[in-house]
Amino acid sequence: MDIVNYMQQVGEQARVASRLMARASSAQKNQALRLIAAAIVRDAALLQAANELDLEAARTAGLEPALLDRLTLSEKAIGTMAEGLEQIASLADPIGEITDLKFRPSGIQVGQMRVPLGVIGIIYEARPNVTADAAGLCIKSGNATILRGGSEAIHCNKALALLVQEGLAGAGLPLHAVQVVETTDRAAVGQLITMPAYVDVIVPRGGKGLIERLVRESTVPMIKHLDGICHVYIDDKADLAKAAAIAFNAKCHRYGTCNTMETLLLARAVAPVILPELARLYAQKQVELRCDPEALTLLSGYPHLLAAQESDWSTEYLAPVLSIKVVDGLDEAIAHINHYSSQHTDTIVSEDYSRALRFLREIDSSSVIVNASTRFADGFEFGLGAEIGVSTDKLHARGPVGLNGLTSVKYVVFGHGEVRE
Amino acid sequence: MDIVNYMQQVGEQARVASRLMARASSAQKNQALRLIAAAIVRDAALLQAANELDLEAARTAGLEPALLDRLTLSEKAIGTMAEGLEQIASLADPIGEITDLKFRPSGIQVGQMRVPLGVIGIIYEARPNVTADAAGLCIKSGNATILRGGSEAIHCNKALALLVQEGLAGAGLPLHAVQVVETTDRAAVGQLITMPAYVDVIVPRGGKGLIERLVRESTVPMIKHLDGICHVYIDDKADLAKAAAIAFNAKCHRYGTCNTMETLLLARAVAPVILPELARLYAQKQVELRCDPEALTLLSGYPHLLAAQESDWSTEYLAPVLSIKVVDGLDEAIAHINHYSSQHTDTIVSEDYSRALRFLREIDSSSVIVNASTRFADGFEFGLGAEIGVSTDKLHARGPVGLNGLTSVKYVVFGHGEVRE
Repeated sequence: MDIVNYMQQVGEQARVASRLMARASSAQKNQALRLIAAAIVRDAALLQAANELDLEAARTAGLEPALLDRLTLSEKAIGTMAEGLEQIASLADPIGEITDLKFRPSGIQVGQMRVPLGVIGIIYEARPNVTADAAGLCIKSGNATILRGGSEAIHCNKALALLVQEGLAGAGLPLHAVQVVETTDRAAVGQLITMPAYVDVIVPRGGKGLIERLVRESTVPMIKHLDGICHVYIDDKADLAKAAAIAFNAKCHRYGTCNTMETLLLARAVAPVILPELARLYAQKQVELRCDPEALTLLSGYPHLLAAQESDWSTEYLAPVLSIKVVDGLDEAIAHINHYSSQHTDTIVSEDYSRALRFLREIDSSSVIVNASTRFADGFEFGLGAEIGVSTDKLHARGPVGLNGLTSVKYVVFGHGEVRE
Repeated sequence: MDIVNYMQQVGEQARVASRLMARASSAQKNQALRLIAAAIVRDAALLQAANELDLEAARTAGLEPALLDRLTLSEKAIGTMAEGLEQIASLADPIGEITDLKFRPSGIQVGQMRVPLGVIGIIYEARPNVTADAAGLCIKSGNATILRGGSEAIHCNKALALLVQEGLAGAGLPLHAVQVVETTDRAAVGQLITMPAYVDVIVPRGGKGLIERLVRESTVPMIKHLDGICHVYIDDKADLAKAAAIAFNAKCHRYGTCNTMETLLLARAVAPVILPELARLYAQKQVELRCDPEALTLLSGYPHLLAAQESDWSTEYLAPVLSIKVVDGLDEAIAHINHYSSQHTDTIVSEDYSRALRFLREIDSSSVIVNASTRFADGFEFGLGAEIGVSTDKLHARGPVGLNGLTSVKYVVFGHGEVRE
């Protein structure tokens, strides 16, 4: 197989399909989503058989249990995929919406119309559910998409692709609106990220190392975040009951997510009161605490205690590990966060009005939170209805990215024969 | 002078200043703009003396008259600069605005806050007025900026920089919020576009060749357009009086602007009626017409007539030259435009409701217009209050870019102690 030619063909087909998708009606797009959901439920056994081929190969290759687990397409996971597509169908169609249509002194009426981006390339790991999710979001937002999932899931992804195309055909939409890259050759990724003529944006999902490499090599813009080094700052004007609940939830609700707290900052005045209380909670979960000298003293006797190294302040643990630092107050907290944060999500716990507003304004992160867990930074919790990923960049989309992140706007002008004087 | 070290220092200074600018009050920013405007009026003679140094050097170097003209800082141009700054001061401050603040079922309230991008690098030709405009827009939007103007205007730009810094200081804002690159060495541009740690976005202004080169070499995202190949399509359901006025204005109002029409498309049914009428108008301005075979026949006898070459459909003339093609109707017009347009601005002239809506939806350009001149695609005409440039990209800003294009949004969450279940 000639990878360069193959990917060029995939790209050309996607570009042609994207023009047709841009003018698809809401009814057609929703019909396609519902047909795909029904086909997935109908062919559950077939999908699981394809998944079994992937799992066998993965076991032979000695894949880690955690990765095997993510690769597995359970009956429940199949149901969730279908439900997800139904949910996307029930969201409002963002495309064609015209906002801010205003008359100008010249007589013309100017507004902005929401339009698809065009062709979206999605690069992800061996998680079959992402295939259905990503296809669904791209169809709804009127884009064509090229999906490159982890090679370990290739059989399952190809089987899903057939069902997606069945749904597209049933709704009268172009088959090439969703294409799964049919080769596991890594060179295909290299091609995908260097075809700006055919691909308008890349959404990479995966580890920091993979994404850093893609960013270096890509000539196509990306919607991405590298890591989530999220902070909670407990102010000396905090409600300590809220503070304990938030600091516990932000660390222990789930360890492997990008919006999990990795560093806890505490104002000096309340650290001696709140830290021992938090230590009792963290001890139940055997959370390892990596502390600056002051916190170390306050926590002496805690069973999983370590002195923090400089590198701890910029490490995403994705594990029951937490770095802790005592600060003077708000100014030092803001300075620490703006220096070490990955600009993902940061929380202040405080009952002080002016400090809460300063934190909201001065923390330079994608999601800035007062008095709630960092774990809320998520497309569903924020009300976007769905999420294709999170962006920590400032251009285009920032924070959790839903359907609107896969769109652009163009200016539209309704005139009546006006000319410039 | 060590260019690498110098530009690193400029970048670091800009980054530090950007943090302070992000939290500057509206009153401070407006005060700075008004102080700069007053200083420019006060020191008009000094600015003209600096400009005279530039003009002398340019004359010695044999610069073309058109470029000398743009380089010249007349008394009127100085007044216009000062007025422009006053106008920017009177615009609403976009920064800190919170939109769509909504309660979610979890109890948290989620919205989006508009924030500055950070550091904006602006690369432009020898036009001193851009220095004042760009500085003003960046100050108002809470950004720090690094200005790299054409080397021919270096004396004038340095003199302006001093006045800008006087205004910043007077308002208690950091001097490094606006820095003019003080070397004319071209290596400084190479540095500026490859410092993503210090520069968040580059706005290049200049010819297509310059911008293409910058795009190839830059590691910083850009807000840019390469060229403006704008179309007017006259439908067979057009009001022919409107069509003639629009097609004449779109070509002849100004030749050198990016929103000037370069190609005229006409439906076959009306071409024999409207073309001779238009030819009479264009003949007054001695516009050269480059025609497809059908238009050529209809226009035989026109004094400045040529057969169009394939390259004409993708040429930005910036001159009294127009390419003309007769098409079957709307479908062929849309196909031609989506193929040859630079995605800048395209107009349909038609009284047909369904065709007007199809054109608006299906033309994939930054500004799509019904029944008005392409010349309206402009920040002032669209009501943005000011314009830093035009973007033909789909990510981030699209179309004329005003203050909002120099900003981003972040999610803000107002909680009351909520945690994820």
